Amino acid sequence: MAVPQFSFRVTHTDGGARRGVMTTAHGEVDTPAFMPVGTQGAVKGVTHRDLEALGAGILLCNTYHLYLRPGADLIARRGGLHRFIGWTRPILTDSGGYQIFSLAARCTIDEQGARFQSHLDGSRHLLTPEKATDIQAQLGSDVAMVLDECLAHPAEIDAANQSMERTLRWARRARERWLGLRDGPVDGVIATNAGQAQFGIVQGGVFPELREVSARRTVALGFEAYAIGGLSVGEPVDVMYDLVGRTTPCLPPALPRYLMGTGTPQDLVESVARGVDLFDCVLPTRNARNGQLFTSQGRINIGNARYAEDDGPPDPACACYTCRTFSRAYLRHLFLSREINAATLNTLHNLNFYLDTLSGIRESIAFGRFESFKVALHRRLSRQSDDS
Amino acid sequence: MAVPQFSFRVTHTDGGARRGVMTTAHGEVDTPAFMPVGTQGAVKGVTHRDLEALGAGILLCNTYHLYLRPGADLIARRGGLHRFIGWTRPILTDSGGYQIFSLAARCTIDEQGARFQSHLDGSRHLLTPEKATDIQAQLGSDVAMVLDECLAHPAEIDAANQSMERTLRWARRARERWLGLRDGPVDGVIATNAGQAQFGIVQGGVFPELREVSARRTVALGFEAYAIGGLSVGEPVDVMYDLVGRTTPCLPPALPRYLMGTGTPQDLVESVARGVDLFDCVLPTRNARNGQLFTSQGRINIGNARYAEDDGPPDPACACYTCRTFSRAYLRHLFLSREINAATLNTLHNLNFYLDTLSGIRESIAFGRFESFKVALHRRLSRQSDDS
Repeated sequence: MAVPQFSFRVTHTDGGARRGVMTTAHGEVDTPAFMPVGTQGAVKGVTHRDLEALGAGILLCNTYHLYLRPGADLIARRGGLHRFIGWTRPILTDSGGYQIFSLAARCTIDEQGARFQSHLDGSRHLLTPEKATDIQAQLGSDVAMVLDECLAHPAEIDAANQSMERTLRWARRARERWLGLRDGPVDGVIATNAGQAQFGIVQGGVFPELREVSARRTVALGFEAYAIGGLSVGEPVDVMYDLVGRTTPCLPPALPRYLMGTGTPQDLVESVARGVDLFDCVLPTRNARNGQLFTSQGRINIGNARYAEDDGPPDPACACYTCRTFSRAYLRHLFLSREINAATLNTLHNLNFYLDTLSGIRESIAFGRFESFKVALHRRLSRQSDDS
Repeated sequence: MAVPQFSFRVTHTDGGARRGVMTTAHGEVDTPAFMPVGTQGAVKGVTHRDLEALGAGILLCNTYHLYLRPGADLIARRGGLHRFIGWTRPILTDSGGYQIFSLAARCTIDEQGARFQSHLDGSRHLLTPEKATDIQAQLGSDVAMVLDECLAHPAEIDAANQSMERTLRWARRARERWLGLRDGPVDGVIATNAGQAQFGIVQGGVFPELREVSARRTVALGFEAYAIGGLSVGEPVDVMYDLVGRTTPCLPPALPRYLMGTGTPQDLVESVARGVDLFDCVLPTRNARNGQLFTSQGRINIGNARYAEDDGPPDPACACYTCRTFSRAYLRHLFLSREINAATLNTLHNLNFYLDTLSGIRESIAFGRFESFKVALHRRLSRQSDDS
């Protein structure tokens, strides 16, 4: 039942933090790792070449967007997502569920799946656990995610429990479909990546006891690895940290753990401390396009008037192309002028900041200095930024 | 009176075509050269690093835009445009006149200059020949252009004559101001580039006799070099080629000749044949953002449905990053999805096509094969594209 091309090896531990190597059909990923979000098969404003130079080891792409445009069939005919988009390193695809709940119109959920209308053309669609599995098989990502129900925050324990039970039923269906696709075409769907792994997702709202139940029962279904979903949806960060810390012990220590859709640099380091290995988040890329830069001194909004004549680099401690070459004054000018390069240069910097932070985390774990790295990161980032 | 940092040397001639080296305060430019347009101090969608890698030897920036935002005073306080935007190679700035006529609101012209309202905030401004010279002195470009009157096409010979006469009077005033600024601050304006050259501009509409008069009298004013303005404004290309061919013999053979705002690859090679050395145009960059690619087989519109499943490169004959890495199908997807990378990858390709064409022109001149290069270029580019 194992996927020969997929494996994970913990190489160092330091307290609850782990450093490791996740091997996929498209190569290895050093963990803990951050996955830049390339929603439609591209990270907005940054070329693959620049992503590779920044050290991005794995990309996240959104199934919902790619399913609607250009379509999974078209991508499958091109040989899969890697070949279609020209990205040779690993790719993880989400299930599409989260985007349906947040982007699509008239979304309704029943036991069968999620019915919705495309945000592009209003066309009607039904995404089932099987369909989400099929689409990702066609995309041929290295890691596919099961379709889960995304509970709105806040939710009562009864609603969270029902949602968790449905997610478990959906996970079983998704796994069965995935196993079927491994043996050959199902209903005309052909998998384009024989080495694709499938991750289960732990749900359960903000209720630790539900999270633990969800984790143990999802693990019992036997996925290649496990993710923690439904966090970073509005709950306080200490609640999130606590839930992560209560969930990871229920997941197999030999498999990677992926915290979905999170978060700030502080969230990342706190989650690594609790045994998380993989992250994705739109914060560095989306905030970059909105003119917000993550720096070693805290966040700055580059459009702020105080930078109009600031000849210094965005982050004096940063060695990225943007910081080596351009001043805050110029970046402010580009941002206010709505130049495309504002998005590009800001995104290059923010991704470098995130990837550099992860690199620092991995190094500190290898040298048994993770705790002091974490404390130092909190101290630096809590300094007053221009927002406060 | 000479600008020590500015010089031009013709290294090869082949018929009317010349190959040469233009030396500026920020380095040498191999001519014939094409200047990518970096309107607001950035080429839309392409970083300086990528421009340099493409072999862009000189950048054109727009005085009108930079004057309105972030302002010439602010840029002067940063040490000039090169330092402000982080571009180390030569920069040419236009006078701002053309943009006032095409972009600004409520533009009125009188002998003093051009009154207009900013397209950004409606603020009122007066651009005189002196002011255009002052702004460019503050920007510190390597080549500054005189303010000329841009005649709308078509125009009668009387109107063209009057406009030409005004342009000559303005040129004299601009030159006087520029000479004053060379000796030190004038009215508080300090030049940030002691090696700045100033080019005069030949006008005269579509009337060869006016063009010749304009050329001889502009040359008499004694600029570092000369441009041909007011073409590519709607007249037929054969009229433009003829006017270029009638004007260049009236310009000093030892100085570079710049044909402003032109044009297609065919326009460039035809103008080189008539002795032009410098070009700028928004075609490769603007068309790229609109999804039109210049290829060795003619232009293609990447959004065309016929490319939906086309796995081939945009231009099989091209070695740029875009063509080496991505398919037409993917570029179409990015374009239809309005991804920033569509602009970036298309622009990288189109600029590579233009810069490569100029490189081929220079090489063919050096080897005495320019005529056959020109014929081959016309033959290739006249092939049926997807538009026809």
